[in-house]
Formats: sequence, structure tokens, C-alpha cells
Amino acid sequence: MPNGAQALVRTLADAGVEVCFTNPGTSEMHFVAALDDEPRLRAVLTLFEGVATGAADGYARMADRPAATLLHLGPGLGNGLANLHNARRARVPVLNIVGDHATFHAPLDAQLQSDIETVARNVSPGFVRTSRATSDLCRDAMEALAAARARPGQVATLILPADVSWSEGGKTCPPPAAAPVPSAAPETVARIAGLLRRSGPRSALLLGGWALREPALRAAAAVAQASGARLLAETFPARMERGAGLPAVERLAYLAELASVQLEGLAHLVLVDARRPVSFFAYPGRPGDLVPPGCEVDVLCAPEEDAAASLEALVEALGAGAVAPQVAPAWRPGRPRGPLTAEKVCKALGHLLPERAIVVDEAITSGLLLPKMTAGCPRHDLLTLTGGAIGQGLPAAVGAAIACPDRPVLALVGDGSAMYTLQALWTMAREGLDVTVVVFANASYSVLNVELERVGAARIGPKARAQLDLGRPPLDFARLAQGMGVHALRADRAEAFCEALEYALERPGPHLIEARIPESLRGVRRRILPWLLRALPALPAPLARGLKNRLAP
Amino acid sequence: MPNGAQALVRTLADAGVEVCFTNPGTSEMHFVAALDDEPRLRAVLTLFEGVATGAADGYARMADRPAATLLHLGPGLGNGLANLHNARRARVPVLNIVGDHATFHAPLDAQLQSDIETVARNVSPGFVRTSRATSDLCRDAMEALAAARARPGQVATLILPADVSWSEGGKTCPPPAAAPVPSAAPETVARIAGLLRRSGPRSALLLGGWALREPALRAAAAVAQASGARLLAETFPARMERGAGLPAVERLAYLAELASVQLEGLAHLVLVDARRPVSFFAYPGRPGDLVPPGCEVDVLCAPEEDAAASLEALVEALGAGAVAPQVAPAWRPGRPRGPLTAEKVCKALGHLLPERAIVVDEAITSGLLLPKMTAGCPRHDLLTLTGGAIGQGLPAAVGAAIACPDRPVLALVGDGSAMYTLQALWTMAREGLDVTVVVFANASYSVLNVELERVGAARIGPKARAQLDLGRPPLDFARLAQGMGVHALRADRAEAFCEALEYALERPGPHLIEARIPESLRGVRRRILPWLLRALPALPAPLARGLKNRLAP
Repeated sequence: MPNGAQALVRTLADAGVEVCFTNPGTSEMHFVAALDDEPRLRAVLTLFEGVATGAADGYARMADRPAATLLHLGPGLGNGLANLHNARRARVPVLNIVGDHATFHAPLDAQLQSDIETVARNVSPGFVRTSRATSDLCRDAMEALAAARARPGQVATLILPADVSWSEGGKTCPPPAAAPVPSAAPETVARIAGLLRRSGPRSALLLGGWALREPALRAAAAVAQASGARLLAETFPARMERGAGLPAVERLAYLAELASVQLEGLAHLVLVDARRPVSFFAYPGRPGDLVPPGCEVDVLCAPEEDAAASLEALVEALGAGAVAPQVAPAWRPGRPRGPLTAEKVCKALGHLLPERAIVVDEAITSGLLLPKMTAGCPRHDLLTLTGGAIGQGLPAAVGAAIACPDRPVLALVGDGSAMYTLQALWTMAREGLDVTVVVFANASYSVLNVELERVGAARIGPKARAQLDLGRPPLDFARLAQGMGVHALRADRAEAFCEALEYALERPGPHLIEARIPESLRGVRRRILPWLLRALPALPAPLARGLKNRLAP
Repeated sequence: MPNGAQALVRTLADAGVEVCFTNPGTSEMHFVAALDDEPRLRAVLTLFEGVATGAADGYARMADRPAATLLHLGPGLGNGLANLHNARRARVPVLNIVGDHATFHAPLDAQLQSDIETVARNVSPGFVRTSRATSDLCRDAMEALAAARARPGQVATLILPADVSWSEGGKTCPPPAAAPVPSAAPETVARIAGLLRRSGPRSALLLGGWALREPALRAAAAVAQASGARLLAETFPARMERGAGLPAVERLAYLAELASVQLEGLAHLVLVDARRPVSFFAYPGRPGDLVPPGCEVDVLCAPEEDAAASLEALVEALGAGAVAPQVAPAWRPGRPRGPLTAEKVCKALGHLLPERAIVVDEAITSGLLLPKMTAGCPRHDLLTLTGGAIGQGLPAAVGAAIACPDRPVLALVGDGSAMYTLQALWTMAREGLDVTVVVFANASYSVLNVELERVGAARIGPKARAQLDLGRPPLDFARLAQGMGVHALRADRAEAFCEALEYALERPGPHLIEARIPESLRGVRRRILPWLLRALPALPAPLARGLKNRLAP
């Protein structure tokens, strides 16, 4: 009879869990030893737990099924917590396995003892279980898997004590049945169809989650076309399908000032697998709820419902089945030239984005022009920073590349963000992943230069500025990448950047390109106005007009 | 009237908090802006929260007073959790400040919202408080400070909502009075003096915490000499003063097999600011409690009591006031030659350790010979991995160097450990810290090769081995260091290592030396025996003899 760990790896593989992102310690050694018994389970070693959890998030976004993690006790879970937070906000399935001391060791309060369950609840509010008996382990794991895979997806945490893992008497368990996903109730569909008919142009659908995948997008675009309603996407989607041939959807802006303009004048906001929009942070004297006064918020379908089916029902209710939805035309920006800037990096990416790319965007302020520059590129998937916990981009790229080995992955990261989980580069090299990392190296926590203004901090002195400065000493990303076995290039002119990107895209990865750019927001001092004005060209024309009018003196 | 943040930084400085280790985000921008109002508070930026918290731990160990941290919301706390766990186990004071959303923003459940208090309780069981009003903020901070500084020290977490920070109406608050520290009750001292008189040679004092500082060490050595009792130190001390001229105390071994031999035959074990010894991990069929059957455990003083005063009272009760305690003689090993090994690195460190060094030891298996090789070196402080959460060494070195700018710091780290919080190198360079980092680069999670055997895992195949292998691709620590602005050297021969170490110690830091060594434990396969036999020369003679007898067939 197998031990607990042996039965567990077999049960996981039987249930279609194909990958485990690991950073194991002593209490996980039986799980590690059992890996050789199960060829269907791939174990991907990471040098830091935040890479393992971020990879599990990226994997789930692209594979639409969970990977497992393997973390070491409470501190290992702590190290993985930030990216599990992002996964929770992405509503993706993750089977988060955390090793623990043997059950009989816990009362001794040894050095590594801590309360794992409590920490786990933070990111796994729906499922945390410590497996207490070897004979129950696989059943516990399958209940965790069922919880993770339910709609909406979630991080389900299984805590695995060492003796439960090493004891004889493991019993495999069949995979859980997939739970049916309901769609919007007919009366809800009828009600929303009615209000869209009445006030179409003063309505908008706010799309999130599964509503940003192709079938739902097409249905949403038909609804918009038939009713005159606008389409908006949540600010930080887990995964958004976009590009030439797909309906283009404008994302709600990160800056509440911009988002308010986008939502202004709406009488109805219909949520489709999306949450009521709130500002990312609070600011003195400004409301956090972005819904304008007088605008009613309605829900077509909640995250536990089927967004595509609900939207298709709405198409039918509106009699829009024959409408051919508007899609983004194929278009690429020209090849940029001259000294490199964040804008030119975005332009070069739009100029060269390959077919079927997966774009992981953690470029923060530097990626401002990215949506515009890539709107007409070949179809691609965009993964964003769902939970705002930075250090997500490189690990998510690892997971996406493992989920889709035949697709090119681009990880676009700020220099500040990249440094949180840079260890992901090593796993990219180890696994030979086709990832091209672009580091927007502006030597600054640039977004905080904006935020420092926005929160209304009165005087900003040199000590405060130094807290946002990454230039002393400068970070040399080419060396950092080479130190982890990743081929690296550097560019400070647009021509060189384009060549580096072409080089990287033509050859199997991983590659890292350090794009040396000026801190474009350095001019932002007393007011946000100049920044907003500079942002105008990046915005869709009606939004830019509205904003310009509002900002005009 | 100042805002909350301005009053807070002033109150912190008034109370003697001189350093804040930071990784701020938007919700902390008012704290950041207030830094320029308070020249007495030094803000040390880190690129990752685990560096900030580990630095606060190292600082507290050397300064004997708390630094503050400044972390960003729940994910920032998560990233800092592992090193706060180590600080908790070190029982050192840390004022852990975690920024939060504005109080009115929290109900909106914005992207970065999470339950910070619950996570914080894991490392701050004694004090977690969310400050709810600007007028109370400084009082809350001083109560947190008082909790942190009590004996034993602890991590006290103050959660600081953005609006509490930015609102007008901050009121400074005077520093808390230092709480008196009681010492052992006279009847306890008399009882323990009696039992040591009766069964001296079959007794041992187990010293931890403050009992490993000079005054307590001298008193303990006098007790040992007068009574015949042995002296032992806890396995992973927060800070141990040692070297020529100080009483030498043998540490309990990490491996339970070795620790059992150290404790064998004892009739009494007297805890002095130390916990009852338990094995680090559990193993199938082995007890976790290391106290041998028939050995009685007594407590001279608990962590909340004064170890030095309690030991001095015991000296008096034993009439040992005139005893001159035995101290370690000055001795250094010779200069090693030939191909570099972990043992030769330890030898070279013993050969060259400078006066008044601070040695941070996270070398795991590679540092096995370090205690022996440095026992007779000039006086130094040793900081170890108190909580077992790896990634502590480099951050703790940052904190120690800031606490003691006139002392050389040596950070001895395994390659696996170094990669958890390598971002610490950047802060070392930025602050110009006199740290010499030695990376024991054996391309392996070597300790896990041992643990894989010890837990009794049956077959160990190539997939399992790959989980412990850091050699594919190789890590190039010299490049990684240079990428963060740290001067780096590399050695694979003992001669080159000695020269590199001399070079680094003669010049202001930081420096990193990559010591390329073979994976010395690669031979350990089926049994622990060969490893134990190899360890024998590192152990004190009586222990080695006892062990050899036990291991003999």
C-alpha cells in the first residue's frame, strides 16, 4: 500500500493536475520522493515561494485548470502570500499545498512552528483544510480541487502534515465531478434587456473575468451594437483576449480621476462577471466608489455564473443574433526611432508583437501606451496585476509559458516590480521557457511619484524622494539575468530595442531585454494635471475629449 | 498642527527609534513625506519586504532596541512574514508598521484589501493594533513600542490606515517608561543551587537569549566550574558572544541524533532564558522531545526574567563568586590551501576573522566547522537562523551593519538561502555597509539531501534529486552582486579565497565572495552514518567520543 504522498501524487495526476510549482523543505521530502512514481506530474522548482505561487496563478489563467504548489510551512506560505493574493483577486483555481510539521510535532512548538491555517485563510477564504489522516488525504485533496475549480475559481489550501504524507495507508481517490455553472436567470436577462432598450447609449456593460474571453466578448459586442450601450472592462483583468478581429473593449483606468470620466453620465452600469468599480486607493476628500451619482448598478451575472451564456441570452433577448459585432481592425504602429522612452518601447511592442502572444503586463506607469499600441496586433492574451501585489509579472510568465509551451510569452515589468521576484528568471532558464522579459528600467518607483502627489502630501523633500529612487546604485538587469542563466540584451535607443526584440522573438527563450528609459513622470511635482494631459493621446478619442474639457481652465 | 504621520515620525524619534526599514506604497506616502521633517529618523529603502523585516531583526539583535519597518498592506506584510517569524523566535523587539487603506476605503474591498490583522497575529501574537484615529496614533505607537521592548522582546505590529496618517490632528506622545525586568525568585535560585550541588556533573545549564551575552556567560561559566555542571547553548541563538577570552559554550546540535548524544546521561537540565529542547523537524519513529528519559527539566529564569542577574544570584548561592571562569584561549587555524571546500572556507574565516566582527551564519550544512574554526578568534558576535525561515542572513547583515557601523559584518550564506532575499545586496551597496558576504556555492539545497535520507524516503529518483539541485542552470553570484552594485570576487581554491577575504576585509564594504565548493554531502545516500562520522572532528572531544562509540557497529 502506498504512503500518503505516493497516493496523493497519483490522485492529483488522475484528476488532471499536471504541474506542481515547488519550493520544498524537510516536511515535504516524502512528496518530493513520490514524484518519481508519477510521470504525469511535472515538478517545477523555484528558488522562492512567490515564484511558485505566481506561476500557479499564471498557469491557471492560461490553462483554465489548476496547478498545485508545494510550499514549506508557515514562512513558505508567507513568502507565497502576495501572489496568492493576486490569484485570489484573479478568481483562478490554485491547489495550494503547504507542508506542515508532523501532527505529533506541532505541540512542541519547534522553531518553524506557526499557525498556517490562519495565514492561509487570507488568500483561501473558501477552503483551508489540514489533512489529519493518511487514509483521508486524497479525499481531502480532491475536495480542495473541487473547491478550487468551482466557478469562480479560488485558491484552495491543503495543509499536509509530514506524518500524514509519510505514513502507510494512502488511498487514492477519484477526481471530483465538474460542478455545473448556472447562467443568468431569464427574468434578469429580460429586465436588463429592457433597460438597455430604454437607455442604451446611457448604459455600459462592465466586463470582467470570463466575460473577457472571446465567446463572451462577441456576445457583449453584439449587445452593445444592438442597444447602443458602451463596453468597459475591469481595470485589471485576469485574462483578456484582444487584438485584431476581436471586439475592442476599453479598460477602466487605474487613476480614479480618469475612471470617473469614463463612467460620467451613465444611467445604468451592468456588471458581467465584474465587481462594482472602486478606486484602487483612497485619496483625501475623494470618493472611493467610482459609480457616478444617479447611475444604477445592475448585475447580469455574478462570478459564479456563466458569463458567455448569460451574454448570449441577452443577445437573444435583444434580438441581436444577426448582428455582426464590430471588431478591432488589424493595425500596427510604425517602428520607433531615436532615444528610447517608455512610449517607444510600447510602440516597438505593437510593431513586433508575434502571433498568439501571451502578454503579462506589470509595467505599471511605463505601460500606459501599451493598450493603444497593441489594440490592432494579432490576437493575444493579456494578463494583468489583478490584486495589486507587485512581483507578479515574472512568476506569472513562468506559469503561462508552462501552460502554453507553443505560444510566445512577453513579460513586461517595471524595474521596481521585477526586483520582488527576480528569481523567476532562474526557473525560466531551467525549464527553457519561451519568455521574453522586457524590463522598463527607469530607476524609479515611478507610480509612487504620482501617488505622492495624489495623496496630497504637502512638501516633498529629498528623504521622501529617495524612497522612490532605484538609481543609487543602478540596477544592471543584464547582469542579473546572466547571473541566473538567462540571455540578456540592453537598449537605450529605439533602434537597438527593436533589434533586441526581434532577436529575442526569433529564438527560443528565455531572453531579457533591459529597456533603459528616462523616468517619464519626473516632471510631476505639484499637480497631476501635466501627467493627465500627457496621457490624453493614449486614450480613446471621446474619453480624451471629455477629459480635456474637464481639465481645461 | 501636524498630520498623523508627522506626529508619528517625531514621536518615534523622541522615543529613540532611529531607523526605519522601508518598502512603501501609496498608503504610506504621507509617512514617507513626513521623513523630511525628522532628521533623527533614518529611512533605509529595501527592494523587498523580507529585506526590511530581516534587517529590523538583525538591527534589534545588535542594537538591543527596535527599529521600525514600513510595509505596504497585507501583501507587503506577507512578503515580510518569514523574517518576522525569525524575529519572533529571536525574541527581539521590532516595531512593525504596516500601512493600510484609508478606514473608509476598506469596506469597498478594493484590489489590495486583505485582512492584515490576522496575518500579523502570526508573528505578533502579543501586540497587533490598527490605529483608528489620528489623535490616538502616537499613543498607539508608543504602546506598540512598549510591547516590543518588554522582556522578552517581540514583534509589535501597528497597522496604520492612510487617512489616520494624512489627517490633521496628530498629537505627539512621550516615550514609554522602560519596564523593570525581574530576576529569578530567591527560592528558585536556592533550589537550583541545591540540585547542582547534588548532581553537578550530571547537570547542564541550557543557555539561550540574554544568557549568551558576556555578563551572563561569565556567571554561567562560574556556576559550571563550581558545580561541575555542563554548559550548553540553544541550537540557534539570536546573538551569542564568543571568542578568545569568553567562556566557550557548546551549542546543541541541529541534528537530533547529535543533540541526543549531547544530552545523554543528564539527570537535570536547567533552562536559562531557553526553551525545552525539541528536534527541529519530526522524523518517523523518533521522539521530538530531546530531553532524555529520567532527566528533570528545571527553569532558572524564563525569557521575561533577567538572565544575567539570575545567574549572578546562582553564583552567589553556590559561593562561586571568587571563581575565575574558564575562557576560550586565543587560537586560529592555519591558512588553508588547495581546492576549496566548505571546511576550508570555515578554516579561512577562522584564520582571518577580524576584531569585533559580527558573524551572521546562514551557511546551513556548509558552516558545520565554523564554530570550531572560530572558537579562539577575537571576540565576535554570532547571529543565527532562529526561526528556521531561510532568507534571513543577508537582510540580518544589513540591520547589524546599520546598528554597528564601526564593526565589520560577515554574512555567511548558502547559495539556496541567499536567493530568497538577494535584494539585500542592493541596500548594502546603497547604504555603503561594511558587509562581506560569503556565499557557499555548492549548487544544492544540501541540507535537503540529508533530510531526504533522514525522513526515511524509500527510493530517491532523479525527479526527487532535481528538486534539490541548484546547478541547472548554475547561479553566478558574482554577476548577481555586480548587478546590484556590490563588488564581487570568486574563488575555487583556498589560496584565492583567503586573498579575496583579505581584500574584502581591508576595504570598506560591501563585498561578495562566491566560494565555489563541491556539494560535500553528495555521498550521503542511504544512511546518515557517513555524514555523522565526517562531522566528528567538528565536535568537542567528549561528544565525538560518545558519538563514535554509539555509531560503532
